[in-house]
Amino acid sequence: MASHPFDEAIRLDGTDPAWSRGHTSPAWANMVGPFGGMTAAILMRAVENHPERLGDPVALTVNYAAPVGDGAFDIAVKCVRRNRSNQHWLVDLWQDDEVKTNATAVFGHRRDTWSDTERPPLSVPEPDRIEPSGLPEVIVWARNYEMRYVEGAIPARGAEPGPSSTTTLWARDRLGRPPDFASLTALSDIFYPRVFLRRGAPCPAGTISLTTYFHADAAELSAVGDDFLLCRAHANRFARGYFDQSAEIWSRAGELLVTSHQLVYFKT
Amino acid sequence: MASHPFDEAIRLDGTDPAWSRGHTSPAWANMVGPFGGMTAAILMRAVENHPERLGDPVALTVNYAAPVGDGAFDIAVKCVRRNRSNQHWLVDLWQDDEVKTNATAVFGHRRDTWSDTERPPLSVPEPDRIEPSGLPEVIVWARNYEMRYVEGAIPARGAEPGPSSTTTLWARDRLGRPPDFASLTALSDIFYPRVFLRRGAPCPAGTISLTTYFHADAAELSAVGDDFLLCRAHANRFARGYFDQSAEIWSRAGELLVTSHQLVYFKT
Repeated sequence: MASHPFDEAIRLDGTDPAWSRGHTSPAWANMVGPFGGMTAAILMRAVENHPERLGDPVALTVNYAAPVGDGAFDIAVKCVRRNRSNQHWLVDLWQDDEVKTNATAVFGHRRDTWSDTERPPLSVPEPDRIEPSGLPEVIVWARNYEMRYVEGAIPARGAEPGPSSTTTLWARDRLGRPPDFASLTALSDIFYPRVFLRRGAPCPAGTISLTTYFHADAAELSAVGDDFLLCRAHANRFARGYFDQSAEIWSRAGELLVTSHQLVYFKT
Repeated sequence: MASHPFDEAIRLDGTDPAWSRGHTSPAWANMVGPFGGMTAAILMRAVENHPERLGDPVALTVNYAAPVGDGAFDIAVKCVRRNRSNQHWLVDLWQDDEVKTNATAVFGHRRDTWSDTERPPLSVPEPDRIEPSGLPEVIVWARNYEMRYVEGAIPARGAEPGPSSTTTLWARDRLGRPPDFASLTALSDIFYPRVFLRRGAPCPAGTISLTTYFHADAAELSAVGDDFLLCRAHANRFARGYFDQSAEIWSRAGELLVTSHQLVYFKT
């Protein structure tokens, strides 16, 4: 059986745990270079693959320092510190003897503690009551997802500026691949730039730094199966060339799986 | 004139721009080791001091890999990438030949673009209508701030668990030092752990990773002078030993200066 396009794209080869080699995947192309969410997923997977990795991811910050070109790349993984409960990792993506992307990751052992989801669940129509749509065909990576927009779909040609930067959508892997930490990492960057929605039109924009916090454990993830996940993002301030974005990803059962934040460059 | 305790604490010495030496400051002590916000401020300042630094900070992620001990430390600063508008930096704090804290920082040139603050301003009483309070005396660093809690002050002995993790306070430097990017960095960590508020009691807790986005430019900061800043924080989910916190810092004039997020370890 052919492997899934996501698993193809995050495949890393090599026998030295500190270095592995991957390749950009045409199925995950963005307008220029690869989808940033896939790059983040690959950096996360590189840590997951390391034989000394303990526990599950709890925090990941990816810095998009320079454009990743199409083709091969090398990933360097290094454990900076470990203690009884956590590990701190540094990960770099290299191409042409230069760092193109760098990341820090925290992995940890989850323990039984008092737990509570304080963020109120989103009140939205069920996905089967919403028309499937997506992003324009030219955004190749988006074809890997089934997307049903509750609000804030990408502005059509001739759209007016709007007062809200909020997008809410149901999304799932088009081929039914169940979520894991790597695919949740990619999903946390599924939102087109918020400035498009406010301005009613696309403009140059790109993520500079992406931070994702993982609240779910492996058991919660495996319960999702091939069901839709509910994804919402909004911006807080657009100021002189940069804006921030905060996002959340929920299971249909009402579990907050991920909160994620990014700082985005824009020009308009 | 004696220098201000904040400037004392972030002072870095050395002639090699890639390495500088600092010392923890008794005035900024936490229960154990230094205040994490001050450690973040020092890492930010180390980049600001570098002769090749261009523009202002836009994003900073600090990973608290191991406890910083009282005494001297060395800071390593390295520019990973630069382009026309941004610089990506790596910063490490070393003690005893080990990395205790590491950070990534993005600096950038701000440009004239369309701008808007979408986050609604907070509606709270003015600071002169609120009783000054603070954190318990044992938390030494907190004595550097004048704090006026609108809601969510630290639970008193015998407090009950509560339904909200939100704290809102007016804060300013007790000696009237006007804010700069380093002091805003420290301020983004001024909130005691949200789990205390939900549980009605302290428990072991510590920040693992702190990300701060800077929306203000130097002109906005200088307009603040010695006035209070409005600070709010809340948690989204507490799950099996970790929770996230999101925070915002506003000027009294209604400018959103900073949004900040952290992932915190806890045990209860």
